[in-house]
Amino acid sequence: MKEIKLGLIGFGTVGAAVVKILQTNASLIEQRLGGKMRLHKVADVDLERDRGIEVPHEILTADANDVLDDPEIAVLMELIGGIEPARAFILKAMKAGKHVVTANKALLAQHGAEIFAAAQEYGVRIGFEASVGGGIPIIRSLREGLVANRIISLFGILNGTSNYILTRMTQEKKGFREVLKDAQRLGYAEADPTLDVEGIDTAHKLAILAALAFGIRVDLNDIFVEGISAVTPLDIQYSSEFGYRIKLLAIGKGDGEKVELRVHPTMLPVHHLLSTVEGVYNAIYIAGDAVGPTMFYGQGAGGLPTGSAVVSDLVDLCGDIIKGIKGRGSHLPLVASSQGAVKAIDEVVTPYYLRFTALDRPGVLSTISGVLGKHEISIASVIQKGRMVKEAVPIVMMTHEAKGSDIQRALSEINKLDIIRAKTTLIRVEGNVT
Amino acid sequence: MKEIKLGLIGFGTVGAAVVKILQTNASLIEQRLGGKMRLHKVADVDLERDRGIEVPHEILTADANDVLDDPEIAVLMELIGGIEPARAFILKAMKAGKHVVTANKALLAQHGAEIFAAAQEYGVRIGFEASVGGGIPIIRSLREGLVANRIISLFGILNGTSNYILTRMTQEKKGFREVLKDAQRLGYAEADPTLDVEGIDTAHKLAILAALAFGIRVDLNDIFVEGISAVTPLDIQYSSEFGYRIKLLAIGKGDGEKVELRVHPTMLPVHHLLSTVEGVYNAIYIAGDAVGPTMFYGQGAGGLPTGSAVVSDLVDLCGDIIKGIKGRGSHLPLVASSQGAVKAIDEVVTPYYLRFTALDRPGVLSTISGVLGKHEISIASVIQKGRMVKEAVPIVMMTHEAKGSDIQRALSEINKLDIIRAKTTLIRVEGNVT
Repeated sequence: MKEIKLGLIGFGTVGAAVVKILQTNASLIEQRLGGKMRLHKVADVDLERDRGIEVPHEILTADANDVLDDPEIAVLMELIGGIEPARAFILKAMKAGKHVVTANKALLAQHGAEIFAAAQEYGVRIGFEASVGGGIPIIRSLREGLVANRIISLFGILNGTSNYILTRMTQEKKGFREVLKDAQRLGYAEADPTLDVEGIDTAHKLAILAALAFGIRVDLNDIFVEGISAVTPLDIQYSSEFGYRIKLLAIGKGDGEKVELRVHPTMLPVHHLLSTVEGVYNAIYIAGDAVGPTMFYGQGAGGLPTGSAVVSDLVDLCGDIIKGIKGRGSHLPLVASSQGAVKAIDEVVTPYYLRFTALDRPGVLSTISGVLGKHEISIASVIQKGRMVKEAVPIVMMTHEAKGSDIQRALSEINKLDIIRAKTTLIRVEGNVT
Repeated sequence: MKEIKLGLIGFGTVGAAVVKILQTNASLIEQRLGGKMRLHKVADVDLERDRGIEVPHEILTADANDVLDDPEIAVLMELIGGIEPARAFILKAMKAGKHVVTANKALLAQHGAEIFAAAQEYGVRIGFEASVGGGIPIIRSLREGLVANRIISLFGILNGTSNYILTRMTQEKKGFREVLKDAQRLGYAEADPTLDVEGIDTAHKLAILAALAFGIRVDLNDIFVEGISAVTPLDIQYSSEFGYRIKLLAIGKGDGEKVELRVHPTMLPVHHLLSTVEGVYNAIYIAGDAVGPTMFYGQGAGGLPTGSAVVSDLVDLCGDIIKGIKGRGSHLPLVASSQGAVKAIDEVVTPYYLRFTALDRPGVLSTISGVLGKHEISIASVIQKGRMVKEAVPIVMMTHEAKGSDIQRALSEINKLDIIRAKTTLIRVEGNVT
């Protein structure tokens, strides 16, 4: 039985989970693969920490080059994350003829073109199923399962931390800061949560999915990104009254001349399947022209789910090596030299939720709606509760579809009115998610 | 650019949809494939019907052998369904060295071993993504995406017709016969709906999924099958009161010594993701030991969704031919010579919903619960509404986990009591679906 030697750089949560899966399910995987995979060398800066698994001491090293320079290793797992030195490690491994498996979405979103070009140049493959959606086989599904389809749209809940925080804010009517603190305490959020809660991690994943779905090379700067830190319990409550849930969504639409790519808190109908995705779970809702709507759901983070995706890539790559198969798996869209035309957020047309903070005086509603009307924005419904003389009250509106630039111009005019006492809150709405 | 010639037998709804997809998305698919697929011959008994697509008249034939005997055709699509002549066509095509793509779940469930053995013998591959879940890439996801996992359990809504009927019965509080009639009128149910509503189609699909998930060869006779024709609006209503939805589920559990395989109306917690799958949609909820719970959702039937899956198999097969790749894709579990040990329904342990129709007399509840207790069945909750002297009333119970054989013995005893005026209704409950 053929045996393929694996190298691992990054023996953290995901790395340790991969080793655990390879050990626990060794005979099962061997049977499915028709061969053996052997962990040959493991590099990490910390060789002391107890990871709850047994690894022969002699395969551990503190020097990544011990893995990269080992000619026996056929497949490298890069599981350290971040840009450098991950990028350098991957390029060096590829140059040495090693296939690569990575979970590194930040790296692929920012340097994907370079890395996929290197893979082509050196005739190696790169598996990145683990980079989006944790254990959900979404990369395979997009590239293979839905290959017959022109992708019309995709909507993704791609960041478990943000979805966990929004879920608890919704269920417990608590504020962002309070829930974030608790999420940090429970290990669901990092000490510095910026990447997660400000939508950056979601944008990285959207860049990867959009390249596959729409066949374009995505510049991260072309993705409009807004996080969840400004979402308030009040907006969540009003959303509910209008029949919506607020989710941090990655949105990609390919049915126009330009592709729409954006990440922001989004109001989704409460009965939509994506609205029912709670806690740390991820889901990707994709509509293709032939298949119609589909959804893929699972744990988007964590060692074992992400490890499941890493090992699926290992089996794929090692299976080919064992069977003597070469030349599978080009990644054309990810090395496309021309960038896709991405619609600016100003051009995007959606309904909006607007929460004005206005003094409760006669004529206020008419003034606000007058400005909106002047900018071609028509109102679908209004909620105004409570009457407080001298105090500002919330006036909440759902608009019909309006253009981003029109909304911005209207709000900048409205925010200058002396009856308006705080910056107006804006949340984009997706009413017909198909 | 290389061109691969395709043959099609069965120019019905799915066949026509495949041709439509190949035409509509020709340039997109060509780009993704790195080559061309050309429809070379199409056989059907009906060559006159307008299918809404243009096909060159000279490629049409009424004789399937024109397709099977054509040495230029590299891949055969078998889209006629049913056992014969589909089986003979596929075996003949394989013998002639053609790869095969099929959507034929009945054939694979009943003659899979023979067909996969033939594929191995003749060195060809068979794509069957379209056989389960329509456009949902569940076969690929099980074989590749989740390959790192020991599959613990799978729960599938695999028949669109049954789910459509149950959804409307739930929403409209109507009876099975009435909704079925309407479904037939609307084209969601066949004139003879037996295969769909009696769970047989679902069992075929479960046999295929279970072979992949649990690595066993499944004898259809080992799958316990009960359809939805006996489900009443009354039971749906009581289910709601207990916090459940009734779904026709394919259930596979692999976490014991024997594999559990069954198809029956099942009460699922109303907030479970599968409970929110409505109408003709399908979904497969799979838990793996590493990945945890996942769900795959989409349209389980219809021309274009099923066509999407067929074309994904075509691209897979033709991609290998174009790249000169041979030897991928064995289907070990489906040709496994040893059958898996499947747990008999008598041994299955679940909670039960029981609806007794009893005369409303003092002591009735105590008599019934006495018999249940004697057979080791403990009651979790009871609903008894209405008081009608001389008339039978429903008494509804949820039991704790009980063994199938115990329940059957208890019910056969209870059904003989003179206070019981109709056969007791039994619905299995899945409380903790993970």
